[in-house]
Amino acid sequence: MFTHNKRLQYTVRVSESNPGLANLMLEQFGGPQGELAAAMRYFTQAIGEEDAGRKDMLLDIATEELSHLEIVGSIIGMLNRGGKGLLAEGVEEQEEMFRALQGAGNDSHVTQILFGGGPALVNSAGVPFSGAYVDSIGEPTADLRSNIAAEARAKIVYERLINVTDDVGVRDALTFLMTREIAHQKSFEKALYSMDSSFPPGKLPGDPRFTNVYVNASRGEGDAGGPWNRGEQWQVVVPSDETLPFDDGDGTASVELGSSEEIAIIAFATRGASEPGRDPITGTDLGTVTQEQKEK
Amino acid sequence: MFTHNKRLQYTVRVSESNPGLANLMLEQFGGPQGELAAAMRYFTQAIGEEDAGRKDMLLDIATEELSHLEIVGSIIGMLNRGGKGLLAEGVEEQEEMFRALQGAGNDSHVTQILFGGGPALVNSAGVPFSGAYVDSIGEPTADLRSNIAAEARAKIVYERLINVTDDVGVRDALTFLMTREIAHQKSFEKALYSMDSSFPPGKLPGDPRFTNVYVNASRGEGDAGGPWNRGEQWQVVVPSDETLPFDDGDGTASVELGSSEEIAIIAFATRGASEPGRDPITGTDLGTVTQEQKEK
Amino acid sequence: MFTHNKRLQYTVRVSESNPGLANLMLEQFGGPQGELAAAMRYFTQAIGEEDAGRKDMLLDIATEELSHLEIVGSIIGMLNRGGKGLLAEGVEEQEEMFRALQGAGNDSHVTQILFGGGPALVNSAGVPFSGAYVDSIGEPTADLRSNIAAEARAKIVYERLINVTDDVGVRDALTFLMTREIAHQKSFEKALYSMDSSFPPGKLPGDPRFTNVYVNASRGEGDAGGPWNRGEQWQVVVPSDETLPFDDGDGTASVELGSSEEIAIIAFATRGASEPGRDPITGTDLGTVTQEQKEK
Amino acid sequence: MFTHNKRLQYTVRVSESNPGLANLMLEQFGGPQGELAAAMRYFTQAIGEEDAGRKDMLLDIATEELSHLEIVGSIIGMLNRGGKGLLAEGVEEQEEMFRALQGAGNDSHVTQILFGGGPALVNSAGVPFSGAYVDSIGEPTADLRSNIAAEARAKIVYERLINVTDDVGVRDALTFLMTREIAHQKSFEKALYSMDSSFPPGKLPGDPRFTNVYVNASRGEGDAGGPWNRGEQWQVVVPSDETLPFDDGDGTASVELGSSEEIAIIAFATRGASEPGRDPITGTDLGTVTQEQKEK
Amino acid sequence: MFTHNKRLQYTVRVSESNPGLANLMLEQFGGPQGELAAAMRYFTQAIGEEDAGRKDMLLDIATEELSHLEIVGSIIGMLNRGGKGLLAEGVEEQEEMFRALQGAGNDSHVTQILFGGGPALVNSAGVPFSGAYVDSIGEPTADLRSNIAAEARAKIVYERLINVTDDVGVRDALTFLMTREIAHQKSFEKALYSMDSSFPPGKLPGDPRFTNVYVNASRGEGDAGGPWNRGEQWQVVVPSDETLPFDDGDGTASVELGSSEEIAIIAFATRGASEPGRDPITGTDLGTVTQEQKEK
Amino acid sequence: MFTHNKRLQYTVRVSESNPGLANLMLEQFGGPQGELAAAMRYFTQAIGEEDAGRKDMLLDIATEELSHLEIVGSIIGMLNRGGKGLLAEGVEEQEEMFRALQGAGNDSHVTQILFGGGPALVNSAGVPFSGAYVDSIGEPTADLRSNIAAEARAKIVYERLINVTDDVGVRDALTFLMTREIAHQKSFEKALYSMDSSFPPGKLPGDPRFTNVYVNASRGEGDAGGPWNRGEQWQVVVPSDETLPFDDGDGTASVELGSSEEIAIIAFATRGASEPGRDPITGTDLGTVTQEQKEK
Repeated sequence: MFTHNKRLQYTVRVSESNPGLANLMLEQFGGPQGELAAAMRYFTQAIGEEDAGRKDMLLDIATEELSHLEIVGSIIGMLNRGGKGLLAEGVEEQEEMFRALQGAGNDSHVTQILFGGGPALVNSAGVPFSGAYVDSIGEPTADLRSNIAAEARAKIVYERLINVTDDVGVRDALTFLMTREIAHQKSFEKALYSMDSSFPPGKLPGDPRFTNVYVNASRGEGDAGGPWNRGEQWQVVVPSDETLPFDDGDGTASVELGSSEEIAIIAFATRGASEPGRDPITGTDLGTVTQEQKEK
Repeated sequence: MFTHNKRLQYTVRVSESNPGLANLMLEQFGGPQGELAAAMRYFTQAIGEEDAGRKDMLLDIATEELSHLEIVGSIIGMLNRGGKGLLAEGVEEQEEMFRALQGAGNDSHVTQILFGGGPALVNSAGVPFSGAYVDSIGEPTADLRSNIAAEARAKIVYERLINVTDDVGVRDALTFLMTREIAHQKSFEKALYSMDSSFPPGKLPGDPRFTNVYVNASRGEGDAGGPWNRGEQWQVVVPSDETLPFDDGDGTASVELGSSEEIAIIAFATRGASEPGRDPITGTDLGTVTQEQKEK
Repeated sequence: MFTHNKRLQYTVRVSESNPGLANLMLEQFGGPQGELAAAMRYFTQAIGEEDAGRKDMLLDIATEELSHLEIVGSIIGMLNRGGKGLLAEGVEEQEEMFRALQGAGNDSHVTQILFGGGPALVNSAGVPFSGAYVDSIGEPTADLRSNIAAEARAKIVYERLINVTDDVGVRDALTFLMTREIAHQKSFEKALYSMDSSFPPGKLPGDPRFTNVYVNASRGEGDAGGPWNRGEQWQVVVPSDETLPFDDGDGTASVELGSSEEIAIIAFATRGASEPGRDPITGTDLGTVTQEQKEK
Repeated sequence: MFTHNKRLQYTVRVSESNPGLANLMLEQFGGPQGELAAAMRYFTQAIGEEDAGRKDMLLDIATEELSHLEIVGSIIGMLNRGGKGLLAEGVEEQEEMFRALQGAGNDSHVTQILFGGGPALVNSAGVPFSGAYVDSIGEPTADLRSNIAAEARAKIVYERLINVTDDVGVRDALTFLMTREIAHQKSFEKALYSMDSSFPPGKLPGDPRFTNVYVNASRGEGDAGGPWNRGEQWQVVVPSDETLPFDDGDGTASVELGSSEEIAIIAFATRGASEPGRDPITGTDLGTVTQEQKEK
Repeated sequence: MFTHNKRLQYTVRVSESNPGLANLMLEQFGGPQGELAAAMRYFTQAIGEEDAGRKDMLLDIATEELSHLEIVGSIIGMLNRGGKGLLAEGVEEQEEMFRALQGAGNDSHVTQILFGGGPALVNSAGVPFSGAYVDSIGEPTADLRSNIAAEARAKIVYERLINVTDDVGVRDALTFLMTREIAHQKSFEKALYSMDSSFPPGKLPGDPRFTNVYVNASRGEGDAGGPWNRGEQWQVVVPSDETLPFDDGDGTASVELGSSEEIAIIAFATRGASEPGRDPITGTDLGTVTQEQKEK
Repeated sequence: MFTHNKRLQYTVRVSESNPGLANLMLEQFGGPQGELAAAMRYFTQAIGEEDAGRKDMLLDIATEELSHLEIVGSIIGMLNRGGKGLLAEGVEEQEEMFRALQGAGNDSHVTQILFGGGPALVNSAGVPFSGAYVDSIGEPTADLRSNIAAEARAKIVYERLINVTDDVGVRDALTFLMTREIAHQKSFEKALYSMDSSFPPGKLPGDPRFTNVYVNASRGEGDAGGPWNRGEQWQVVVPSDETLPFDDGDGTASVELGSSEEIAIIAFATRGASEPGRDPITGTDLGTVTQEQKEK
């Protein structure tokens, strides 16, 4: 069961109202790399986890991310607090209100203020949080890599947010949050490599004919090499009439149909057949030949 | 510029119609771990990439993933081909049609058939593909980790799809696709560690006070240890009245307001103040006290 | 800050695997009336709340809802646990796997199992959780009513879930969860009517000409009366040529345009003008007149 | 069947073009508290309603809300009319066009104008209308409460929109619309309390052990009391090792598995087991230890 | 203003409960080709329309589509009516309820019943209606073509629904609805070709160098010809090193940067540069080399 | 299989950084009328196509649209390239960064820059690309009309984008892209009218009683006529008590219920019956009658 201590994990001191900045902060509240996505990613994994150690770790970090959600939400709430009151109570000089809210050359916060000034479950563009941000699939060799990547992305978004504000208190709290992503990434990396085998992920082995093949599918000036496609471990294949398909077949798709299916699909194809030899008048002709058409 | 060779990268031989299976295959066509998501992940990264080698690699793999989208789509098209014809042409014995389509104890394919039998841009639950599946953020130390994780997830989904079909041709093509994810993961790992420094991701360093802290936020029976929270590199903190907040502040959130903001927020608070000492009649009382109410 | 105790708020005892039932339970995990939606509704309100008493209540209930999310997730995890293992490890007899998973005349769980068997952040139809489920708008006279309604809806969904399972342990946990919604509704009702004035919500008064008007917009057999449209407090208006518009105007929409705007809109209208007097040949003619067309 | 009278329910007189304001108005056209959401909420309830009186009321109000959608759409159309013509016809001085559209320190309207200037089915942030805004669940004791809450929220959004414009005609129409929400809320409240019993909603009673329990899950400075958690009707419980779980069990989740399920889950757990005693090298080491790595 | 007559435009006589069929019918209630999408497509166009004749036509058809939404909703309501009552009132024999609802080899209706049995604003897969289904863009030469296409798609979906039911009353109502799409398509075609010029759509002419070019981008066995790429009006180009780019440039993308931008982008590129000559150890090595690693 | 040539189909020369303009260009990258939507529309149709000629055409155009996606993405990448570097590397003078990015009176690009400056799979309002933009339904008489309409819409959006920029290189590339939409529309029209019969779409004929009926559902000042509702081919019907329903029935909806269903629905109706004769006290009374309430 979750419990809550009214003290924040980190103190939030905002120096002045700034709904435009609040708007950007929403990216880490209801955005894809945000704290709710992180908390839910680890929480859903924890519930399905069969390894006691990882389950404990996932619960620890999920719980901490909820506390970070609270910090980000508190920053947003403070940045919007002045505007919220003005909009709710100010019934005169609307034009001034409209311009004041737009003053910083920024309108999304006007939009956000319509939602009341508290943190909404949206990203910085106003797009609602989506469960699709949570990419847990219940296989630890994949999920731990997803977690490592998610922490890396979140770290970068905090870095960018730090780069656009000089509010000392906001920068301080953001730096704390950014740092915790680094610590979490370290934990997830430790957990990944604590498994006996994490590559290839899952259980089934690959087909040895294709595990070391690099397909040079994009060609021309700019073709380049590196350890990802060069060296003795790689066999480079260029797709062409000669090399396609990669198997012994003919490179087509086919299916065995039952006889009633066969009859039906032939009827379908016949009904919709085009006549390549005919050059029909079309809607573009009707739409362009206007002069005669009119005179008719 | 993209070009297209009408041969598939891998031959698709489906043994019989199976719209229920087609439905599951949609997971890798329009689903979060599917081939379009993969192609777009690498393609969007390629466009913004400043390193020539990685740009080439991203274009190679993006192009191959589009070709995999074609293979998955072809499998779906073949599995649905019979049902498509029957539904489009069969105007009699509708009850039979309804039951036949539902025959395998499965109805999502009925739904999908409504879309016409071709591969729709949805996942196996019919949820439309979302641009939110693409988590590129334009920083290679994060994006490459996202790519590694995405390949691991896709490998697992192919494994599960292989586990639910005994159609030899479908299993063969799925095994090819699964194997290519392994090869791509290897390339992305090589690219990640070919950078001088990939950890911490991005540019800003963490705050050294918090990079090695592990927060034991979930407690009780089940607490466990491992290299992710134990050892000399970790400092474990248990959140409590004593340790909160982690900084020197008081653990609250605050903002400096201008005077008009102050006045407005006070008016707002006053208007909405609750009176904790009053025990009001409420809607639950109105909704439960029915007898007297009626007799009135 | 949030913390977590590894004991659930309520013990979960599931009698056997049932992925079809797990699927339905997702409705209260990632669905619109589910526990995450509830937790986030109250949490976002708490952050923006200016009244100390309500803020405390909102934090209490938000935290409890997170604990309910954990219970629902645990039920789903247990119902799926058997199937998860079979799918991940069973690489033979795929047809049997396919049919077994579909056995209960139910396919969504096949879909869900593709996600790995843990609770995904989706509803029972597989639709991802959306931040749009959270309807907080930062005004207590509206938000408390939203909370009352949300608790009522959640109570009903639990009732329906109880009605479709005879698993004693699952019914027991669901009854606990259903009951807590009743208790929460009571708290929110108390809070609503503890305010000096909660109707009309917000600050601005209505226009007295229209507050007591009931518009009988749907007419014919079935017209009925009740305290919602009858009695001295109501003035009934039937929309018609005689009563429209409800103001003194002419019932049209207009705007004052600047001269360059005027010129542009005239050009736009002229370019797109239709000629009502002409009876043109159209694409339907081209598409139906097939015989002569062919012979040409 | 619906019919339409070309007169608006209320005359719309807009004083000048203002695409920025049009953008905000979209909130009530295609937004969550908007008129389409309202119309569809009541319309879907009406179709499933078994009580003749409520069915009539729901049809009346649904029809009126469609008419309000028309008013809001007309306001948007008028505010955008000038810009629409300029953008469609003006092929010179593009820079001026770009700046003019951005002139009010506002860019969403540029975005909206791309859609052509008419009202799009989006909210003020450009997010498409979602069927998820409609929370009808077919149980009147819940649906009527949802309707009451929805009217309260819509009333507030109109209030905020009134507060940001000094266009007299727009304010006048918005005030009409705001007032109608007040009248509708009154009708829905009458209908709710016209039922014999509306609390607890639905049919099943709660478990009496938990209906009067208040869980003090959030603790610390800020703990407060009011009629929602204090008084003889409430029993306050603080979650802790002593009180958890709330039932007689052990607070864990469990499931009875069949033997093949048991074997499979053990295989799954074994394959993915972590070794807590090992301190592995990880990707963070590979990413940071750069000097030696290079020299190798 | 809209008004409503309680008689349906077409009588609905359903022969028996069938929640599985109800589920499919949702496709035309809240689905992409459904009646709400149609009504909103024409309604949004009507509001922005500058031509009096088209505006009237769009209002007529939008209003009729709302009436069709009512018919489809009524079919769904009737098909679900029995199940709704059973689920809401039946508190015993839950297993029977579960199986009965699943009886037809179909589970989505179980899901839908959770929403209460009335028509929800979702498609047949349970995906919420989206404002993105409405593709109005405010230019009649495009919008009328969108309408023609939308009517054609809706006609086909009705055809498929007719093909899966033998309920005479349902087929009868569906045939009426299907026929109306044909009539609407005819009206929209008439309106399109009543314009002086409808091709090319909009105002700007195309670049004459490229209007008649057909790009043979997909090559190999299966290359075919028809009036869409053959004949004197077409100039066929095959993309290759010789023909790319189609202009006189070098086929690259470039931008002029300011000096501070230049410096920043170089710093960014340098920080993230890969070293193609190094063959690094990677996470795949850490994850596969298990034996030595352990023994260390 | 797809392959890629590193030369663009058309050279992109951007004259200076302009993230605000980049933002608008996203409309054609990840927006509903954008190039990915187009490519996927034709690609999914190609896979399911049974006519060899159309299949080839669809593959050709799908492949070209992917190449256009590359051009649009490259324009966005170049417009954002300067800002991307500054944000990633600039850790000082954050206020300046914030204002510089907002400088053009535009904030969405600040939001977009948070995603890293590359093209994200979103539209110009930041809404993620949706598979719902792809309206393929697998019936050529409908799909070709959808394609014609989609090309028309895309042509218009390019026209509008050309109208808001004076960057010569951007205009040049946009004009190329706009022109290609014209050429594609021509091909799709040729393909549509190359079929023997394309109207009515699909297989089933309409009910002759209703194919020529025009329903004058919107009445009043503004009623107009044209070939879409006037002339001998049309029979105009005005909905009214006299004409409704259009069939011989009574205009109601009904269903035959089984006896247990009947009993259940009666129980449901009885439980929820309203009492129209009672005038209950409601929550609005509780919320407004404050004076006495308090003194109690």
